[in-house]
Amino acid sequence: MGSTSARIAVDAMGGDYAPDTIVAGALKAVNELPAKILLVGDPQQVEAALERHGSSSALDIVPASDIIGMHEEALSAVKRKPQSSIGVATELVKRGEADALVSAGHSGATMAASLLRLGRLPGIERPAIGGIFPTMVPGKQVLVLDVGANVDTRPRYLEQFATLGAIYSQYVLGIGNPKVGLLNIGEEAKKGNDLTIRTYELLENNPQIPFVGNAEGRDVLSGDFDVVVCDGFVGNVLLKFAEAVGNTVLQIFQQELSQVDSRVDMELLKPTLSRIRQRIDYVEHGGGLLLGVNGVCVISHGSSQAASIQSAIRLANEAVEREILKKLHDRYRGDNELTEDAV
Amino acid sequence: MGSTSARIAVDAMGGDYAPDTIVAGALKAVNELPAKILLVGDPQQVEAALERHGSSSALDIVPASDIIGMHEEALSAVKRKPQSSIGVATELVKRGEADALVSAGHSGATMAASLLRLGRLPGIERPAIGGIFPTMVPGKQVLVLDVGANVDTRPRYLEQFATLGAIYSQYVLGIGNPKVGLLNIGEEAKKGNDLTIRTYELLENNPQIPFVGNAEGRDVLSGDFDVVVCDGFVGNVLLKFAEAVGNTVLQIFQQELSQVDSRVDMELLKPTLSRIRQRIDYVEHGGGLLLGVNGVCVISHGSSQAASIQSAIRLANEAVEREILKKLHDRYRGDNELTEDAV
Repeated sequence: MGSTSARIAVDAMGGDYAPDTIVAGALKAVNELPAKILLVGDPQQVEAALERHGSSSALDIVPASDIIGMHEEALSAVKRKPQSSIGVATELVKRGEADALVSAGHSGATMAASLLRLGRLPGIERPAIGGIFPTMVPGKQVLVLDVGANVDTRPRYLEQFATLGAIYSQYVLGIGNPKVGLLNIGEEAKKGNDLTIRTYELLENNPQIPFVGNAEGRDVLSGDFDVVVCDGFVGNVLLKFAEAVGNTVLQIFQQELSQVDSRVDMELLKPTLSRIRQRIDYVEHGGGLLLGVNGVCVISHGSSQAASIQSAIRLANEAVEREILKKLHDRYRGDNELTEDAV
Repeated sequence: MGSTSARIAVDAMGGDYAPDTIVAGALKAVNELPAKILLVGDPQQVEAALERHGSSSALDIVPASDIIGMHEEALSAVKRKPQSSIGVATELVKRGEADALVSAGHSGATMAASLLRLGRLPGIERPAIGGIFPTMVPGKQVLVLDVGANVDTRPRYLEQFATLGAIYSQYVLGIGNPKVGLLNIGEEAKKGNDLTIRTYELLENNPQIPFVGNAEGRDVLSGDFDVVVCDGFVGNVLLKFAEAVGNTVLQIFQQELSQVDSRVDMELLKPTLSRIRQRIDYVEHGGGLLLGVNGVCVISHGSSQAASIQSAIRLANEAVEREILKKLHDRYRGDNELTEDAV
């Protein structure tokens, strides 16, 4: 990127609370980042949302007259509605008018639009959605992929995910020597289902992948792994389960704290409780990266709040700033080696 | 069972902290339950543990001269070591000298021994391990199966798991009209991988199964489902992940509370914190039921503490008291209907 700031196309109409939370999140993002944001959607609705939430010279509106609903069939909707907010946002990236795309709308449609318009990276047969989970080591994250782009995956796709994840972890998340694990139900090479047993062999024999072994369910959040690869079915179940557990725990918290001894001064507890909430709350960490397409694309939750949109935009901005696409292209041309510390 | 108390064979040598935690857990169990417990293992070691932890007339020792290690190949170890603690405990159930079996040892070996000696229930091709998870509704649990007995499952196996789970939920967990869900990555019938799409059809068309639809990762703990069926790979990842999340949250808790404002009187907070811990701590809920074999068999974690062993024994006792095996046999003879409230 050099010295110019990233231009990020944000689907202003996608998500359960669009355009309000999207616009509010974009405003938060431009306050902390040097990025330019293109809000793609119905100009009237986006302007009305801007009036409610504030404005910034770093925000522009790009009109899109259509919307893809959450229950439409992804591929046909993308083809039928070129003027949808997702379609227009992707087109901006394709034409080089934006460097990245963020959408909290129909994730299947975002993926289909990206595949159709941006294409795949060389060497990648299927793109994967990477989810970033907090670990029990403060400040340390783990990239889990795939969290929902593919089901009934093949071993060589998982091998490709491992490569994508390792490069992403190194160049965007800043991990010097990323450790890649394979999500499995035991530690040993021969444990697992047909997919994982065959994938283990591929990963073990690929010198380009810093594979350290199987990661069991209990290891995902341990901080021992930087990247965990899995079939999109398992990853999606895990992602949604993790979010729900976070919420469940926060509810238990609230229920029990509402009955706390009346002599406890809750004011004094507030900073501690808010730190605990922040560390547990998975919503803050929302936003998955669509890895393997020839463009930077961040898929946010449909239920995203402004803070999630802000963090999704932050993620997109980092991927652009750190030239992840160039790194991925170089890698497939053999120009860089994963173990060199480029961060 | 009528008026006689359940006789439960407990593998005293299985588990990371055996025989101490096993013996301690058995002692706790006989203090709260009318059950008789047969501690199966090396008499000298079990007696030494009893000397450390106490004694009870409801405990007997049954000698077993061998142990199956955690890293042995399950089936061959079971065949090679008929005098292992798992082997002897299973044999007691086969001969009618015990009504149930509890082991925190090698779960594959426990399963293999149960299959070899006790056989399968009619109509069941594969047994499943059922894991019981707490939900966000206080006091409500959800039975997830399979959590690890099978991988690369077929649709009709999942259908059989659904039947087993529903009967178990109704007769042992006391749910009047159990709601059965299929773990999946979307709500719609056509969502998912090949396995879940085909299983959905079977479940929907089986009038004996109270199937209410797909359960996404976020729904597992919602309390909306009483039984959730899934392939053993996914279930095992989920179970181990859930346990780790519980531990992670408790660690975050401890870290943050150690830095709380010194003016807060921690003594007053203690009852609240211990209630929160109890609700979050998955360890308390440890113990999976091996469903589908012709006998009552509870598989506990290798890392089980005394409280987990106690709760595993409690589970076995309830399954015996409520005559789960008779209910399962009746069901497959068509003598009972799932919707009658038998509890």
